[in-house]
Amino acid sequence: MEGDKQEAIEKEVAKVTDVSLKELSRKLEEFALERDWMQFHSPRNLLLAVVGEVGELAEIFMWRGEVAKGLPNWEESDKEHLGEELSDVLLYLIRLSDICGVDLGEAALKKIVKNAIKYPAKAT
Amino acid sequence: MEGDKQEAIEKEVAKVTDVSLKELSRKLEEFALERDWMQFHSPRNLLLAVVGEVGELAEIFMWRGEVAKGLPNWEESDKEHLGEELSDVLLYLIRLSDICGVDLGEAALKKIVKNAIKYPAKAT
Amino acid sequence: MEGDKQEAIEKEVAKVTDVSLKELSRKLEEFALERDWMQFHSPRNLLLAVVGEVGELAEIFMWRGEVAKGLPNWEESDKEHLGEELSDVLLYLIRLSDICGVDLGEAALKKIVKNAIKYPAKAT
Amino acid sequence: MEGDKQEAIEKEVAKVTDVSLKELSRKLEEFALERDWMQFHSPRNLLLAVVGEVGELAEIFMWRGEVAKGLPNWEESDKEHLGEELSDVLLYLIRLSDICGVDLGEAALKKIVKNAIKYPAKAT
Repeated sequence: MEGDKQEAIEKEVAKVTDVSLKELSRKLEEFALERDWMQFHSPRNLLLAVVGEVGELAEIFMWRGEVAKGLPNWEESDKEHLGEELSDVLLYLIRLSDICGVDLGEAALKKIVKNAIKYPAKAT
Repeated sequence: MEGDKQEAIEKEVAKVTDVSLKELSRKLEEFALERDWMQFHSPRNLLLAVVGEVGELAEIFMWRGEVAKGLPNWEESDKEHLGEELSDVLLYLIRLSDICGVDLGEAALKKIVKNAIKYPAKAT
Repeated sequence: MEGDKQEAIEKEVAKVTDVSLKELSRKLEEFALERDWMQFHSPRNLLLAVVGEVGELAEIFMWRGEVAKGLPNWEESDKEHLGEELSDVLLYLIRLSDICGVDLGEAALKKIVKNAIKYPAKAT
Repeated sequence: MEGDKQEAIEKEVAKVTDVSLKELSRKLEEFALERDWMQFHSPRNLLLAVVGEVGELAEIFMWRGEVAKGLPNWEESDKEHLGEELSDVLLYLIRLSDICGVDLGEAALKKIVKNAIKYPAKAT
């Protein structure tokens, strides 16, 4: 049974090579609608959910001292856990953006262009 | 001059209708490389950057009391500012994932499937 | 047995009517020394512990919508839980200050005076 | 003029050797009343203020890599700044506790006793 669930997860993921913010946004809205959760998704509720998930992310890194890029000495289960907490932050961030009427992908692209103007690349 | 910059931003954004996590990831890596910023992008530095940006996001909602969906009474400039802070959280979150060797899009899709198993939708 | 523990807690607390930051600071240092925990108490570890606890605090308020002063409709157990999370933030904040060599009480008093200069009280 | 302000701050602080949570609490309530700020001090507003200040605290440590105890190589102005951000977190945390009707000092003492039972000190 657990194996079946695992297989279902792998299969779903294997179909995708790259995912867009709008695809995630659609999945999350559908998810909330099917569970009658839209009533809980107010801007400040979702903001506090982001804060809560960032807290869980911090707890993974809390007592470790400095951590090397690529997490060379981490257990596979810790990396898995990290992927879940990073995802939780992302998913609530997307919901928060949607509920506020902000197109997060568009805003992110704009911000990168704005940053590029603010911090010009070194001449070569 | 300011107008030119603005135009450059609009043009860049107009080309895109939807953006994927991997596209953002590529842009951010390129951005860091061109500015010699990879040296600063360690996991815990980037995690603290996420925390800092979530703090700035919280400050936008701080003294407002409850906020309605779609932000009906907000000034356009406040919405703009909100889009930028949401983006900053997203961009550092993507960098953090990349530096840790986590495929954020894949992890997010897995998490949605896992959540669907954990919280079954109501029967209709 | 559980009753004994509870009683020990009540007794300890009853002795005190007000507690100073330095008293808490001393208790926490002693606590860390007795458990050989000083090795984990680096500035950034403790900062991430603060972030983690603020996340747990946020989770208490997450799905509730606006909350009235005094928490009139909260269960006693939820208030108890809230007291614990508020304490966790405070205790790690004190540890962080101490490890950084900052006198938190002195800094807080200075900050209040500085704020009073920045935001003058209304004339009456 | 600036010198006078500075002097006023030093004088106020010099009078105190240790400060209690209840003293800070009283000062903060008086401060809010004198400025007609009680209307803004709802539980979730103050919680988001705590989150905002923790963000500013994180920004101080963001790009520094690991930081040694006592901050040996920090500029005096950076330490000053750190003291202010630690204070901001503390002051909003105290306000949040008060507005929620939680006695923070009592809760903190209880939590230390509870932790001592949960994590017994090593036998010697």
